[in-house]
Amino acid sequence: MEQKSEVIYGKNPVTELLKSKSGVDTVFISESLNPSVQNYYTALAKECGAVVKKVHPLKLKTLCQSDNHQGIAAYASTVEYVSIESILSVAKDKGESPFVVLCDGIEDPHNLGAIIRSAYLMGAHGIIIPRRGGVSITGTVHKTSAGASMHLPVAKVANIAQAVRILKENNVFVYCADLNAQPLYRQNLTGAIGLVVGSEGKGVQPLVKSLCDDVVSIPMHNGASAVDSYNASVAAGIIMYEISRQRTLSK
Amino acid sequence: MEQKSEVIYGKNPVTELLKSKSGVDTVFISESLNPSVQNYYTALAKECGAVVKKVHPLKLKTLCQSDNHQGIAAYASTVEYVSIESILSVAKDKGESPFVVLCDGIEDPHNLGAIIRSAYLMGAHGIIIPRRGGVSITGTVHKTSAGASMHLPVAKVANIAQAVRILKENNVFVYCADLNAQPLYRQNLTGAIGLVVGSEGKGVQPLVKSLCDDVVSIPMHNGASAVDSYNASVAAGIIMYEISRQRTLSK
Repeated sequence: MEQKSEVIYGKNPVTELLKSKSGVDTVFISESLNPSVQNYYTALAKECGAVVKKVHPLKLKTLCQSDNHQGIAAYASTVEYVSIESILSVAKDKGESPFVVLCDGIEDPHNLGAIIRSAYLMGAHGIIIPRRGGVSITGTVHKTSAGASMHLPVAKVANIAQAVRILKENNVFVYCADLNAQPLYRQNLTGAIGLVVGSEGKGVQPLVKSLCDDVVSIPMHNGASAVDSYNASVAAGIIMYEISRQRTLSK
Repeated sequence: MEQKSEVIYGKNPVTELLKSKSGVDTVFISESLNPSVQNYYTALAKECGAVVKKVHPLKLKTLCQSDNHQGIAAYASTVEYVSIESILSVAKDKGESPFVVLCDGIEDPHNLGAIIRSAYLMGAHGIIIPRRGGVSITGTVHKTSAGASMHLPVAKVANIAQAVRILKENNVFVYCADLNAQPLYRQNLTGAIGLVVGSEGKGVQPLVKSLCDDVVSIPMHNGASAVDSYNASVAAGIIMYEISRQRTLSK
């Protein structure tokens, strides 16, 4: 488990953070916000034992390095990463087959945030990201995930290949998202499943791909000559949807 | 049909634009690019009758209002919008049931680009966007669409409600993407179909929704209490995937 300081901003992410009570140091509220909204966040922050600071909107902009703060930000004292084993035990506690998403070097925080958001809504039990060679859980990731990053367990591992090995030892069947395999809806995606999503430019690393049990592909119409891939977070969302669909129907 | 001037940038989008021969005025090539790459684009541009200008990278940055130009940009003289009828006739010419996506006020160009990219790859025949109250086909849209916006017909209409009426008159069954309907995989999405995707914040307008024949929803796990929706382009991608899946399987 690692410790990291993060600025969380935006109304939904800060509300989620405060409600999850997972270690908030300070809440920054813009003086330009409606007083009733200010009071709402002040009350919520006090419940968590967090310090409240009313600040000028420009101060918030500097703090968040973004214009997109909606008048509210929080300084979270910890983003708690978990182990792969604890993701698997979340599934076990729920009496479900594990459903884990591995991000092999996603670089754009908007993509990682959207993937976490979809994973949470599709019923995945956790996300695995690499320590190096990809974006971590930053403020932008929190924001784009619409708060899902506060609820879905995230493991940060030294390397994704090793994570695939650990999942396989735990009887999880690991698929890698790539091109030119048979369409994913013709494959049986029920049971304990890991899904490796590659980075935007390079896809899944060859070593990781070679360790995976099988490949899933999203069919492409129009010859795929001019445009040869889906957006990374859209592709991940579609495959997770198909997994979730098959799991629901097989119950 | 409208005329509009646009800066297209990035290697793939410019290559697609030049290969599509759809009216390019000027191609801007960064002096910092590898000479063999410069020659490639020069040759391609000459084939289209476009003027070639070699420029400093900073000039490109100003032109594109982005750092993301990869050393190449083009001034497209026209983005040709088509009519709804001509989208329907594309489907007819292919001997396929129409599959049309209507964007009811998508505001983020990255989302619109990703939706166009998915629509193209999922075999949709065209996209309909509103003249007002949403982003048009800008340089960022071209870039995010990975060039798909150069291939997929786009109609720009005075209002989306009227577009829904025209589609229905043409025996197209129009679905609206929203929450709390039955899961989309339990619905029959084969046949002539229109899909209305709402804007990021507000969803589909009430009037448009009331005109639609039915609603499709993507199921959400985890109670959907903390996070209540998918990212707009991910949601659109998932629904288009399901439509495409059912169309393929029903053949």
